[in-house]
Amino acid sequence: MDTEEKVRIEVERSIQRSVDETSCAIRSLLAGRGIYALNLISSPGSGKTTLIEALLSRFEGKGGVAVIEGDLETEIDAERIRKHGVQVLQINTRSGCHIQPSQLLNALKEMDLSETRLLIVENVGNLVCPAEVPLGEDKRIVLLSVTEGDEKPLKYPLIFKTSDILVVTKTDLLPYVKFDVGRVRRAARIANPAVEIFELSAVTGEGMNAFLDRIESFRAAKGTGA
Amino acid sequence: MDTEEKVRIEVERSIQRSVDETSCAIRSLLAGRGIYALNLISSPGSGKTTLIEALLSRFEGKGGVAVIEGDLETEIDAERIRKHGVQVLQINTRSGCHIQPSQLLNALKEMDLSETRLLIVENVGNLVCPAEVPLGEDKRIVLLSVTEGDEKPLKYPLIFKTSDILVVTKTDLLPYVKFDVGRVRRAARIANPAVEIFELSAVTGEGMNAFLDRIESFRAAKGTGA
Repeated sequence: MDTEEKVRIEVERSIQRSVDETSCAIRSLLAGRGIYALNLISSPGSGKTTLIEALLSRFEGKGGVAVIEGDLETEIDAERIRKHGVQVLQINTRSGCHIQPSQLLNALKEMDLSETRLLIVENVGNLVCPAEVPLGEDKRIVLLSVTEGDEKPLKYPLIFKTSDILVVTKTDLLPYVKFDVGRVRRAARIANPAVEIFELSAVTGEGMNAFLDRIESFRAAKGTGA
Repeated sequence: MDTEEKVRIEVERSIQRSVDETSCAIRSLLAGRGIYALNLISSPGSGKTTLIEALLSRFEGKGGVAVIEGDLETEIDAERIRKHGVQVLQINTRSGCHIQPSQLLNALKEMDLSETRLLIVENVGNLVCPAEVPLGEDKRIVLLSVTEGDEKPLKYPLIFKTSDILVVTKTDLLPYVKFDVGRVRRAARIANPAVEIFELSAVTGEGMNAFLDRIESFRAAKGTGA
């Protein structure tokens, strides 16, 4: 191993240590305030922002929700969420393919979390990079829309392995695409036998309540210290 | 600036130099053989493999086509392409979010390129990372399916800025989704005024010939040294 390789490995380790420490700092900040945190990950356009809007409708009047939006550029998603009257902060990663724990920690320090009970983080649209970076979340949720192909859990196993919940979205489009939900379920369970799987359509509303009920019960359990 | 920061910047520069040198090595290898190269980039499930299959049908009997498939895991795409009777090699990047130039160069050295006139590289499904990594290609093609949302060129500008061609795919699904093709065209041209834009459906075939004609004319021009 030459010197450059040694330096490279040392720098990579140092970066990883810093990532891990910052994730722990986020986790303890949230735990101290009893805030339940979700990290939403998917390809661009799988329906993360739409699912957040459904969560906001469900939690309206049930304690504060705060949202962090991650995108390379623009405030498009933050503006969309802001219309729902909740606290939202946009992180622009420029060329970064995921939200860094340090970016999230800085964002949380800027926000008023005194009333917040649920934190929803929408990661950068990417099925690869965010899988390796814990953000101190309670549940990691991966979304896969039925237009993306049913072999994706085989081709991108890490995100399916590290997610607690898989949400299959846009099921209203099933009649128009080739997509075998059973194949996705099987492949996802190979990657992670404990994964919980939901299928839903934000257009027809089918399956949405089952998902929202589950998130509500998770959050309630954390709120009571259970 | 502390020592660790200096070391980090030096390592990053060294990696970038290595990437640039390897891209140049690929470019001269391909130029020496008169091979025209395409680098296909998109989110997972936007239709890259399907578009490659259409290219294979068009170029059947018109000189050799070789395909490089990039995925984190599996040989699913290589097996699909192999059925078309062309030379194909699968690169598995494991956790890597794009094909590295060194991976591509090694793959090309393993292949028999004596009859190859067109090289098609299908990058890892990702709208962020592959944008920063030139693979010595003649044309970079970004695909965006109509199910992904029409604001994507604003939110992920780098890939739209660095691509020569934008292919809007799955236009057969336009009646079932909210997607303003005009908005995408405008946003893509802000990122890159010179981008060529095609709209097509692999299901109905609409728009496909215009795209294939264009690629064929590009390749023919390189073949004659024009």
